[in-house]
Amino acid sequence: MSSTIITLTTDFGVSSPYVAAMKGVMLAINPALQIVDITHAIPPQQIALGAMALADTTLLFPAGTIHIAVVDPGVGSSRAIIYAEIAEQRFVCPDNGLLSRLADRQPPTKIIHITAEQYFRQPVAPTFHGRDIMAPVAARLSLGLDPDQLGPAHLELQKLAWPGATRMANRIEGKVVAVDSFGNLITDITRDMLADVPTDESVTVRCDEHETQCIFKTYADQPPMTLVALIGSNDQLEIAIVDDSAKIMLGVGVGAPVEVCW
Amino acid sequence: MSSTIITLTTDFGVSSPYVAAMKGVMLAINPALQIVDITHAIPPQQIALGAMALADTTLLFPAGTIHIAVVDPGVGSSRAIIYAEIAEQRFVCPDNGLLSRLADRQPPTKIIHITAEQYFRQPVAPTFHGRDIMAPVAARLSLGLDPDQLGPAHLELQKLAWPGATRMANRIEGKVVAVDSFGNLITDITRDMLADVPTDESVTVRCDEHETQCIFKTYADQPPMTLVALIGSNDQLEIAIVDDSAKIMLGVGVGAPVEVCW
Amino acid sequence: MSSTIITLTTDFGVSSPYVAAMKGVMLAINPALQIVDITHAIPPQQIALGAMALADTTLLFPAGTIHIAVVDPGVGSSRAIIYAEIAEQRFVCPDNGLLSRLADRQPPTKIIHITAEQYFRQPVAPTFHGRDIMAPVAARLSLGLDPDQLGPAHLELQKLAWPGATRMANRIEGKVVAVDSFGNLITDITRDMLADVPTDESVTVRCDEHETQCIFKTYADQPPMTLVALIGSNDQLEIAIVDDSAKIMLGVGVGAPVEVCW
Repeated sequence: MSSTIITLTTDFGVSSPYVAAMKGVMLAINPALQIVDITHAIPPQQIALGAMALADTTLLFPAGTIHIAVVDPGVGSSRAIIYAEIAEQRFVCPDNGLLSRLADRQPPTKIIHITAEQYFRQPVAPTFHGRDIMAPVAARLSLGLDPDQLGPAHLELQKLAWPGATRMANRIEGKVVAVDSFGNLITDITRDMLADVPTDESVTVRCDEHETQCIFKTYADQPPMTLVALIGSNDQLEIAIVDDSAKIMLGVGVGAPVEVCW
Repeated sequence: MSSTIITLTTDFGVSSPYVAAMKGVMLAINPALQIVDITHAIPPQQIALGAMALADTTLLFPAGTIHIAVVDPGVGSSRAIIYAEIAEQRFVCPDNGLLSRLADRQPPTKIIHITAEQYFRQPVAPTFHGRDIMAPVAARLSLGLDPDQLGPAHLELQKLAWPGATRMANRIEGKVVAVDSFGNLITDITRDMLADVPTDESVTVRCDEHETQCIFKTYADQPPMTLVALIGSNDQLEIAIVDDSAKIMLGVGVGAPVEVCW
Repeated sequence: MSSTIITLTTDFGVSSPYVAAMKGVMLAINPALQIVDITHAIPPQQIALGAMALADTTLLFPAGTIHIAVVDPGVGSSRAIIYAEIAEQRFVCPDNGLLSRLADRQPPTKIIHITAEQYFRQPVAPTFHGRDIMAPVAARLSLGLDPDQLGPAHLELQKLAWPGATRMANRIEGKVVAVDSFGNLITDITRDMLADVPTDESVTVRCDEHETQCIFKTYADQPPMTLVALIGSNDQLEIAIVDDSAKIMLGVGVGAPVEVCW
């Protein structure tokens, strides 16, 4: 399992020189690398949002791709930096919950505690392990370094609590967990939870103080400016305003309560 | 005509995980691809601005480059997804006017209605044809897939109305159509329309309630803080404040009226 | 010394079509290029901030990498465009101080005034030398063009004044020069200036009207919401709030005075 593709997911901000520093370090080790930015717009220190971005995107990449994730409020503390394999993808990141959403779906087949300092950039800055540990280790893995050389087995991943939505007899209670660039409100209510829920007018979807009937297949099913609920491309219930921003029109954001009743 | 370069132009927002999802799908099909972001900052659903970005940039790429454009308010409706060849560049996008500005300059030499589902990612999400149709089709084209395999010929591109500026005997009326990162106001008055217009003090350029004389060659022709008109790098008249932001200093934005008189 | 890696540092804004235009021009000359964005978020015309970004990142790249920098308020004026070699890295940029921070640390081993028009894109737009001069020249260098073909030797780089911090007997006076995406305040007080300064409670660090004791190694040394001073990953003194934004919590930004006393 080797690859020349490395992806980056960080909370460094778009166009941050910290990102460029990591790319420089990696290319100095393997100039043939192809580096893909997943996102650098994770809000600072928001591990759960980093975990969601990884879960939504990484499994689409070719097997063997190396994914570096740096959302690392514990940098310089005793939290471990790990190498993990999940669903034939490879990850290098702090063990702080970043992989817990992926691991909830498919258990890791290997976890290593990265301790082998000979693969680090020296000296290691105590505030930038992305540049000095994760980047050089990932670049060396891309050249064929055996991950078992990186350190001892690591028994278990840190988990984040994912409260998620709650399914009752005729009702699901959830919340908005993300807002996309179109202002669509993405909830924690999944396609699986809705499997036997009607999609016609007998179902009501409420978000904050707004409500609508039916669960549609796509935005184009309704006229512009209509409030619609539908199952989005990541298999999560979304609340949208056709051709406009639900976030702005409803004045609703992350954390708003969402209820499906039938 | 083959290429390992694919470009992306979308309204997904910078650093959107939707962009990363498309990249993952493409690299899983062709890991040797080189993917170039043209822009992800097209304002949501603004097809005309997407068409301008494509017209301003794509013809600079090597012949055979594949350009994916996803500004797609009609996703999930009956609008076609097409493959087109214009000026030796190749395009994969919804047929909603995105190519109309390019096609006004050079007619397409081939247009195909993409219908061959065997080249799509399955299942196709009704809200994300960028990931499930356009990305896999483009990646397969990069591996040499014959575009004639994608579906039947498509007779005509959807056109957008491009009102553009109006030339009269001694006057041109236009408007601001874009503002760049420096705050320069870019108009729809082209170099061609100005071909026989004087550039000395006998010409007056008005924008909203502000006015200036002469059409200069470059910002450096005048001292800092001067209001100047010049023909910019995309052959369109620009209104600028030397070393400052015309947008902020004049309080003017997209849509503001611009008049050239002589 | 050749490379297929070219980096870009500009003030064009993230996702600007100007950046895509430069990439198109370069790839049309050398389709095998690997292009890396260092940053496009330099504030417009801020040469000193561009010089800092180059100094913080470019030396990490593999020897021979070509770095294009376009922060160019003098575009179209008589300022020279140069090719320079510093510490085995290669640069193509206007001679306006962009390289002065790097050159303060290591003298250039070669400087060429780029005048050979046969390597430019024609016609050269007087407002976009990045696309029409720097991009094609850099792409041709990546294919092996001898830099001595670009023009005559250039005797000296333009310098920017870098006032920097001032060291006195028991005190250093400096200021905040950058704020990162976490809200950490990065100062112009360097690790070298602090070499013999105590790091325990006998040292006081003041920023604007706020103060703290000690110079720590990492954020994790103190509890959340604590104001701390530490030496950051670029060897400059930083002022941070653990797990929060010092910029927002202290209401302080670039230019704020910083004092270290012991």
